[in-house]
Amino acid sequence: MTDQELEKAAANGLINRRHLLGLGLAGMGAAVANSALAADAGMLLEIPAWSKTPGPGASDYGGRSSYAGQFQRMSGAPNPTYPGGGASRSPLQHLQGTITPNGLHFERHHAGVPDIDPSQHKLVINGLVRQPLVFSYEDLLKYPMVSKIYFLECSGNSGALWGANGADAPDGTAQSIHGLVSCAEWTGIPLSTLLDEAGVEPEARWIGAVGADAASMGRSVPLDRAMDDVLVALYQNGEPVRPEQGYPMRLLVPGCEGNISVKWLTQVKLTREPSHFRDETSKYTDTQPDRLSRQFTFPMGTKSLITTPSGQMTLNRPGLYQITGIAWSGRGSIRRVEVSADGGQTWADALLDDQHSHKALARFRIPWQWSGGSAILQSRATDSLGNIQPTRTGLINEVGLLGRYHFHGIQSWGVNSAGEVRNVFA
Amino acid sequence: MTDQELEKAAANGLINRRHLLGLGLAGMGAAVANSALAADAGMLLEIPAWSKTPGPGASDYGGRSSYAGQFQRMSGAPNPTYPGGGASRSPLQHLQGTITPNGLHFERHHAGVPDIDPSQHKLVINGLVRQPLVFSYEDLLKYPMVSKIYFLECSGNSGALWGANGADAPDGTAQSIHGLVSCAEWTGIPLSTLLDEAGVEPEARWIGAVGADAASMGRSVPLDRAMDDVLVALYQNGEPVRPEQGYPMRLLVPGCEGNISVKWLTQVKLTREPSHFRDETSKYTDTQPDRLSRQFTFPMGTKSLITTPSGQMTLNRPGLYQITGIAWSGRGSIRRVEVSADGGQTWADALLDDQHSHKALARFRIPWQWSGGSAILQSRATDSLGNIQPTRTGLINEVGLLGRYHFHGIQSWGVNSAGEVRNVFA
Repeated sequence: MTDQELEKAAANGLINRRHLLGLGLAGMGAAVANSALAADAGMLLEIPAWSKTPGPGASDYGGRSSYAGQFQRMSGAPNPTYPGGGASRSPLQHLQGTITPNGLHFERHHAGVPDIDPSQHKLVINGLVRQPLVFSYEDLLKYPMVSKIYFLECSGNSGALWGANGADAPDGTAQSIHGLVSCAEWTGIPLSTLLDEAGVEPEARWIGAVGADAASMGRSVPLDRAMDDVLVALYQNGEPVRPEQGYPMRLLVPGCEGNISVKWLTQVKLTREPSHFRDETSKYTDTQPDRLSRQFTFPMGTKSLITTPSGQMTLNRPGLYQITGIAWSGRGSIRRVEVSADGGQTWADALLDDQHSHKALARFRIPWQWSGGSAILQSRATDSLGNIQPTRTGLINEVGLLGRYHFHGIQSWGVNSAGEVRNVFA
Repeated sequence: MTDQELEKAAANGLINRRHLLGLGLAGMGAAVANSALAADAGMLLEIPAWSKTPGPGASDYGGRSSYAGQFQRMSGAPNPTYPGGGASRSPLQHLQGTITPNGLHFERHHAGVPDIDPSQHKLVINGLVRQPLVFSYEDLLKYPMVSKIYFLECSGNSGALWGANGADAPDGTAQSIHGLVSCAEWTGIPLSTLLDEAGVEPEARWIGAVGADAASMGRSVPLDRAMDDVLVALYQNGEPVRPEQGYPMRLLVPGCEGNISVKWLTQVKLTREPSHFRDETSKYTDTQPDRLSRQFTFPMGTKSLITTPSGQMTLNRPGLYQITGIAWSGRGSIRRVEVSADGGQTWADALLDDQHSHKALARFRIPWQWSGGSAILQSRATDSLGNIQPTRTGLINEVGLLGRYHFHGIQSWGVNSAGEVRNVFA
């Protein structure tokens, strides 16, 4: 396929997504032809050692290839004044599709990962209920469950992009800047089932959910949301929730900032008012331009991110590249993702793998012919309610620079003529 | 909710699926009430050790809880005359949802798991093509990809249910009988993209796909299918395909018997006729009643399976239970799953978690009030093309008992008055 046959979709090399699957070798210089191979099979290639000797057999629980070492989370050095505190970030620039494997789901802990014996763990429902209840893990396994794919995103994700006034854009990768978002199939009991059983008193308006970690992480959730699609999640991608994700159970509040999905869930208390837990004032609040703080933010914004090419990658030569990334919305599904190669002057529609992304990651792709000149790559998501991802400047103009959470503006990756990709403010 | 309020959907205790999420404690005896808890939080419960001391912090790649030990695959003892040969089965009776985590995806190896260095691995496309091509792993990473959730099922799955003429049903669990089916989100390059690049000659009708394991496992696929939805899969649930699943790449032939999705893919040869590989005569063929063998079976049948309650489980007391299971079809999506508690005399519609199961697992659920008497639990799937899962007897009447592959008849779990669940022929 020649350049002339490729229908341009936007300036600076974006190609109509309809060409996505028709694009082969042209421009990529990827494959090496060897006419001797026409004669017969791979017999003319050297037979590798692993084809000559049987390998080990089946196992009880599988592991990764030793050659896939770059697929790991990124966590900071332990802080002795904050034992167990911190986070690890998913390697977004290396992942594909929309499901995050359990071993690579991002983490955020306030007092590390408790090693909970499920037979000794209790879930209490109390407060403004007709009948307080205590559930064991075994009890809960008998309840009706639902399964659904949902993203989780830390409210602090992408926080580096707020930047300081006038400062340059910080260097970083998709992982280091945005790696606090992941996606999994969660299975659990609708919280409404358990609340109905306890009998919610008419004056209750909120729940207070508390974890069994040493931080007693607690968050308040409005009752109407708690009765909607919230789960007591017991399974993640088919197997029990991992310890670092809340084993044996976590609250799962779809679409909302991650820390509200309280891990190691041990209490749900029905209340008239928010519980004003420590983590509802010491963190996760957004100071507004008038210096008042917005205490609660529930749904995460409509957001997207190009994961390839992305920060600290290098394009080796001009030619055809596959742009891909992820998009999500805390309020619905992703209806559209547009991509720009000229810093937002012109836009082309990317292809979405499917349309089932309700409060889940969506994967988008579009081909791009890099000329060898400079480019600024951006993506812009629109959700099913019509919410459009704002530019960084637009977001800052709206909410100011005093808050440090809930950044969902457009990410700009600058490409220079050497092919180096860097985070830029544009 | 009392018995009188529950709308019966079929005989022997099946309850209308609309009640599924409204069913709480009633009949399950699951929760323990403690009015002292009304006073305040979990403070009246003993505070466990893990709530008192911070745990370890974030990590590079997460692991499972040491308390989730039953979540493992089941593999037989190694056979010294068949090094690396054999299989491991997914613990279906313990899994939830539809995604199988990568560590628990079933395995079937003909010569064990090769430890392949991706930088030394080649994929050759040759035979009846205008231009033979050799691809490195790095080359392929640059190609356009698609992501989709697909099941894989071994053609030998559920083979124990063929049984011997007149013999009793073999004892077993959902895992030991049916554990050779799993489901993941696969990301890869449409094979059609690579074949188009090589240029398929007009006389080509088949491909022969060969793996780099020591068995040189090979399978033939008709060209029209190979040009349809077949992938060269590089990612499984977001991360690189695991070694035991074909790292660095496998063929992924959606809906078809698992061994056609050739692991460690190293060659795709275009041919006029099937290649008649060893594994297309020594195995995976079905002898018909007239003693001729059907050599090729591509799509797997329309099938379902109750995973809870299932073989070797025990129901502790009469009361309300949640029946759940999985369904799939190699030809389309699952439109309907019906459940019977009386061995197929009466049926009730189960609830499907969603309707997006094209060549993927679907999860079904229905509540059941066990009276304490005997019951035979069955499920019956219907796919989007109208194919209905046959009874075991119906399947045997159709294809005889000389073949040992491709069993997709209805599974019957017998429940006796002691609550013991066993595989039965019914």
